[in-house]
Amino acid sequence: MVHSPFYSALLSGIQDKETFLCIGLDPVCDLIPSGFPQTLSGIKQYLSLVIDVTQDLCIAYKPNISFFEALGIEGLRLLEDLRKSYPDLLWIIDAKRGDIGNTSAMQAKFLYDILGASAVTLHPYMGFDSLAPFFNYKNGFNFVLGLTSNPGSADFEMQTLASGHLLCESVLDYCSQWNAKTHNVGVVVGATQTSHLAQLRQRHPELLYLVPGVGAQGGDLASVQTKGVNSDGAVIINASRAILYGHPTDIELSKSIRGRAVAFRHGA
Amino acid sequence: MVHSPFYSALLSGIQDKETFLCIGLDPVCDLIPSGFPQTLSGIKQYLSLVIDVTQDLCIAYKPNISFFEALGIEGLRLLEDLRKSYPDLLWIIDAKRGDIGNTSAMQAKFLYDILGASAVTLHPYMGFDSLAPFFNYKNGFNFVLGLTSNPGSADFEMQTLASGHLLCESVLDYCSQWNAKTHNVGVVVGATQTSHLAQLRQRHPELLYLVPGVGAQGGDLASVQTKGVNSDGAVIINASRAILYGHPTDIELSKSIRGRAVAFRHGA
Repeated sequence: MVHSPFYSALLSGIQDKETFLCIGLDPVCDLIPSGFPQTLSGIKQYLSLVIDVTQDLCIAYKPNISFFEALGIEGLRLLEDLRKSYPDLLWIIDAKRGDIGNTSAMQAKFLYDILGASAVTLHPYMGFDSLAPFFNYKNGFNFVLGLTSNPGSADFEMQTLASGHLLCESVLDYCSQWNAKTHNVGVVVGATQTSHLAQLRQRHPELLYLVPGVGAQGGDLASVQTKGVNSDGAVIINASRAILYGHPTDIELSKSIRGRAVAFRHGA
Repeated sequence: MVHSPFYSALLSGIQDKETFLCIGLDPVCDLIPSGFPQTLSGIKQYLSLVIDVTQDLCIAYKPNISFFEALGIEGLRLLEDLRKSYPDLLWIIDAKRGDIGNTSAMQAKFLYDILGASAVTLHPYMGFDSLAPFFNYKNGFNFVLGLTSNPGSADFEMQTLASGHLLCESVLDYCSQWNAKTHNVGVVVGATQTSHLAQLRQRHPELLYLVPGVGAQGGDLASVQTKGVNSDGAVIINASRAILYGHPTDIELSKSIRGRAVAFRHGA
């Protein structure tokens, strides 16, 4: 069995830290705890604190690039700087890219070479050649959208094909084939879709799932852990807002952040 | 018939300039003409020249954000600055975004508010609520990927659904419904797919198409013009590399650029 560098590091992390938790970094000025200025500098301080106090409690971080972009171009500089401050973490940049091949090559260069991603997320709609430039990054790992956690997943992802399968099943079928060749393809499967998790898992026991939607979006953690793990016992379960925001002011912030992270690591 | 500000400006542009041409801005250091330094400054000079000498020959520009990103974060600053230098142009930022609602709202903020897009391109995979935050920008216009020009369009876009329709037809069906409500939804249909253009057009005579793939990707211009126009006589036909790069050195560059743009405006 060939393991990519990302996948090997992930398996080690899961074993050593006994968790599947990935912490999503979705910076919003209005939501960072009081005590931090609502500025880029304040956001950087807060995200650094979050990382400092949770590194032993999670296997990866998932910065959502759109939240950094919404801070302006200097928000992307913040993302770049943050990565440079923590070069050894597994760093999944949630960017949901995908375009014709020569454009995807530019996207891969930006995410992997410039922003230092360990892994990225991708849209499957345009098919294999829109994803291949990402798969060519042998040290990278690519999570293709399969079945997402939002209501709109019913519009296309859950449509039944003439073959009798759902569109998202077809996407997972392709991803499984691609991963068999390049060993760096996984899928995004939303935590709110627990009724489908087991069914999808049965088709492809080996595929690595990145599972967002636990916490603020309402996905059930225990169910996701049981149904989401692959044949190597691996899954990545992401929580963002539920860990970053809404901390009580009457206890020490770092303790509150750690407490939330601990709550999301049960059962690993 | 309600027309959005973008759509009204587009119809005026088509009538006044007698063309459907949109010029794609895909900056690549290695490809800009000799005489321009292969730096961000050189790229800005060259793109400014292209815009200066083609404004009367095209209806819009389509900067491909991924090419700016691949220049590093300062490449995005260049894109921002370029827009500020030409605030009155129709400016379609080809970004192919789309995510769960709260993230899409961040993407829309970045593209429309920060980078000054008149219109954007979007991935349909995650369905309506992943696109709605873009549709909420009443002054914006949103081109959802329908049938793209790359080989991978066969993987998912051309799959037949249990309903008997193709997935891309289903996407166009939804887009037509959404556009009936918000008046700011169009679709991307690739120029290399001329055999399907007429068929798709018949289903939804009113939908506005953004058609990439003419020129370097091999799409046939005359056929695209005939089959691509909607019931208002509008279509947007994009050429990028075929206009930007590979100019002969024995004639004046601005004449060569204009000559290419003129070649792409026949038949309007």
